[in-house]
Formats: sequence, structure tokens, C-alpha cells
Amino acid sequence: MPSTLCIVRHGQSSWNEKNLFTGWVDVDLTEQGVAEARNAGELMKKAGLWFDAGHTSLLTRAVRTANLALDGLGQLWLPVSRTWRLNERHYGDLQGKDKVEMVQQFGKEQVQLWRRSYDVPPPPVKRDHEFHPANDKRYRALAQDALPTSECLKDVVARVLPYWHDVVVPQLRAGQSVVIVAHGNSLRALVKHLECISDADIVELNIPTGMPRLYRFKDDLSFAEAPRYLDEAAAKAGAAAVAKQTGA
Amino acid sequence: MPSTLCIVRHGQSSWNEKNLFTGWVDVDLTEQGVAEARNAGELMKKAGLWFDAGHTSLLTRAVRTANLALDGLGQLWLPVSRTWRLNERHYGDLQGKDKVEMVQQFGKEQVQLWRRSYDVPPPPVKRDHEFHPANDKRYRALAQDALPTSECLKDVVARVLPYWHDVVVPQLRAGQSVVIVAHGNSLRALVKHLECISDADIVELNIPTGMPRLYRFKDDLSFAEAPRYLDEAAAKAGAAAVAKQTGA
Repeated sequence: MPSTLCIVRHGQSSWNEKNLFTGWVDVDLTEQGVAEARNAGELMKKAGLWFDAGHTSLLTRAVRTANLALDGLGQLWLPVSRTWRLNERHYGDLQGKDKVEMVQQFGKEQVQLWRRSYDVPPPPVKRDHEFHPANDKRYRALAQDALPTSECLKDVVARVLPYWHDVVVPQLRAGQSVVIVAHGNSLRALVKHLECISDADIVELNIPTGMPRLYRFKDDLSFAEAPRYLDEAAAKAGAAAVAKQTGA
Repeated sequence: MPSTLCIVRHGQSSWNEKNLFTGWVDVDLTEQGVAEARNAGELMKKAGLWFDAGHTSLLTRAVRTANLALDGLGQLWLPVSRTWRLNERHYGDLQGKDKVEMVQQFGKEQVQLWRRSYDVPPPPVKRDHEFHPANDKRYRALAQDALPTSECLKDVVARVLPYWHDVVVPQLRAGQSVVIVAHGNSLRALVKHLECISDADIVELNIPTGMPRLYRFKDDLSFAEAPRYLDEAAAKAGAAAVAKQTGA
């Protein structure tokens, strides 16, 4: 049966604003982020979308974005699954550190490699650090050796895809309409898979915040139409803003 | 392993205020209801609660209450399952009707029987009525002959308990801490089962809105301590208010 997928990157978070590496640190949305999430709900409503199931990460900024967008859509009641597999990339020992200070300490080239290479992870976070996932109760039911201590984008692809294949694809194959609200890198991993983007090209792809991207599938999960943002002009401006922020 | 259950009835809804029979009609919280939900979160936080899993109905007023309370607790990210089995009692053909008008039409005794008997359901809602569950897309994946068209409390017990036994009990047996945010009658059904209340007595039990009730279990799910509301004085006042509202 034909099916629909809508992906949304969470709105601006407080550490985006402060220019800190965030990763799995559970920071909340800014006021601007809240407005972006509400706008996502309005866009979905105008597009006439209606969902059978939703998925988010285990991080507050994605959950709040999903709640606000679904509320705007009139589907606050939607069953939404939460999984660590949709979490942001784990930024290892860089989490909580200032981006400019890291450039001063390690040099621009090294930091750029950690940020934009496909397969070079940052240094791992140590076991006794507060940001090590084993020190966060929300992950206590998981196999401890499954928890990342640092990830490159390639690692994120490897942990997102099992959830995609085992949970989301069966829903789409059953003809359901699905929404995923997640993060810059977990969505980049998914888009890489869905749109067959090369390892080299994916690191240049910037997904704008709070902008729903729509996929319509045929029975065999090939595209029924080209993927598109619900507001193409705003998405273009948003992606440019993300790219600029990254370059700064 | 010892485990914890916290149950919360959603805050005041807009049809409580208007004195209409609500049931499965998806009305939202009033401002007062929002405040009650926030207060529930504060009480849970002060009590030092922390949850591994949550459950709500498929109705907005329970979902919003859960979101607000969990946000106050600092656990907005908590995985929360939603199920029709925790929905409010289906009030059949009375849904959307004014309580006073129904007394004028059917007599006080008959309406009291529908409201407070254990095993007399109101007249069923018709298949072509907008409030028939088969006309609400959110239930479309369910077996159509499982959907109620009118329920007495006995019917609610029968549909709540399979979820309790199959989903919640295994979590408690695994030592988890669980929160359930639901409705006056789905929680009454649960409390009847948990506290062994007779068919005659349960109809007199009034659960106050937005007031967390705490159960602590031993390994075998017998009580480790007497169940209690997190704010006993406020709960007593709240139950009296509910009783008064019902009598009016």
C-alpha cells in the first residue's frame, strides 16, 4: 500500500545558541525552537497530513518538538515511540565544550575533521564523566556495550538503520503514515539511506530545523514522488543558515 | 523486585465545566485542568519519583496531563504508551448531551442508574453518529467488534484488565517504576482490581483530578505499604468536590 513519511529536525536548542557541542546532552528548546516546532505543526496541518504512528529520540528537545507539532496538527494523542537509536550523534568528549575553544585547543583542521568527516569520531567520553551514557538512568535498561561513547556519522547510520528496518519499514509497508522527529545527524543518516547519498556528499547536506520533509512511497518503498520540504523556500534559507553556522 | 505505580486522573476538561457527558469525545483541558496537571508534576517531583515507563489513553486530555506532569518532573522524554484500553468509559448515546437535560428527558432515577450502577450501560451510540468509535480514524487499526458503543463500569473493568495484566504487570514484576495517566472510570476500574473493592462500593469511590496516587509493591505485587495520595488533604477535598459535582 502507498505510504507517507514525514521527518522533522527539532527546533533550535539552548546550546545551539551558546555554540556548545551538544550530542546526547539533554538541553531544551529555546523560544525560537518552540516557535519552529509550532510552525512545523501548522505546515503539516496545511498539507493535510494525518499520522498513524510517530517516532522520536529519548532527548527532550525532539520530544518537545514532536509534542508541539502534533498539538498544532490536532494529533497530540498520537502514539509516539521513543528510542535511543534516533538520538543525536554522540559527540564524545567534545560534549559540553565550546566550539571556538576546541578550535583553539586542537586546531581548525582537526575540529573540522571531527565535525564533518564521515568516519572519524571525536575522542570518547570517559566512564566517570557525567555525560557518559551509563551515568544517565534513562539508558539503564539497554545493553551497556551498545551505548556509544563517541560517534562519527558512519556510526550513527549503523545504529539508526536497525530501527528503520525493524520498526518503521513494517509500518510503511502496512500503508501507514509515519512521522519521525529527531536530530541533525540521526536524520542525516536516514536521508543518506533513503536518498542514496554518498559518504562524501552526505556531510555537506544541511537539514533545516523545524521544517517537515515529506516522502511518499509506492508499495515497494520506492518513491511515488520526489521528496520535498513542505515549505521549500523556507527550507532553503534554513539550510543556508545551518551551513553558515557550521562554517563560523 | 519491589516496584512503584503512580496513577493520575487527568485535570478538569472543558466538558466537565459545561456539564456534558464526555466519555470518548476528545475534549481538551481547561486552564484549571492545565494547572492541576502541572501541580501533579510538582507533587511527583517533591516525592522524589522517577519513572521507567508511562501509559495513557488515546484521548488528548490524558495525554496533555501526562506531558505537563512529566515535564514538571523533568521526564518529558519518558517513553509513554497510549492505548484505547485506558480510555474513559464510553458513555454511549449520552455523549455530548447535557446532564440536566438528560434528567428532564429520562428521569433522575434512570440517569442515576446509568451514571452510578456497576452493570447498566447507557443506550448505545448509533453507527452513523459522529461519536461512534468507528468514525474516529484513531481507532481504525483496531478490531471493529472490539470497539465499545456504550459501557458500564463492569465493561470498563473487562477492557482495562487485559492491558494491566499483559503490559503493566510485567513492567512492575521487572522492578520498574510506572506512571498511568487516565480517566475517572478507567482508573476506578484499576483501583477496584488493585484494592479489592466490591461492585457496590466502587461506584461510590471518587478519584480526584490531577492528584497522583502511589502504590508500592513487593515482589509478588502485594502492597509494600498502604496506597496513598501524594497530598492527602488536597485529595480529600478533591474527591468531595467530584462527589458534589456528581450529585448536582
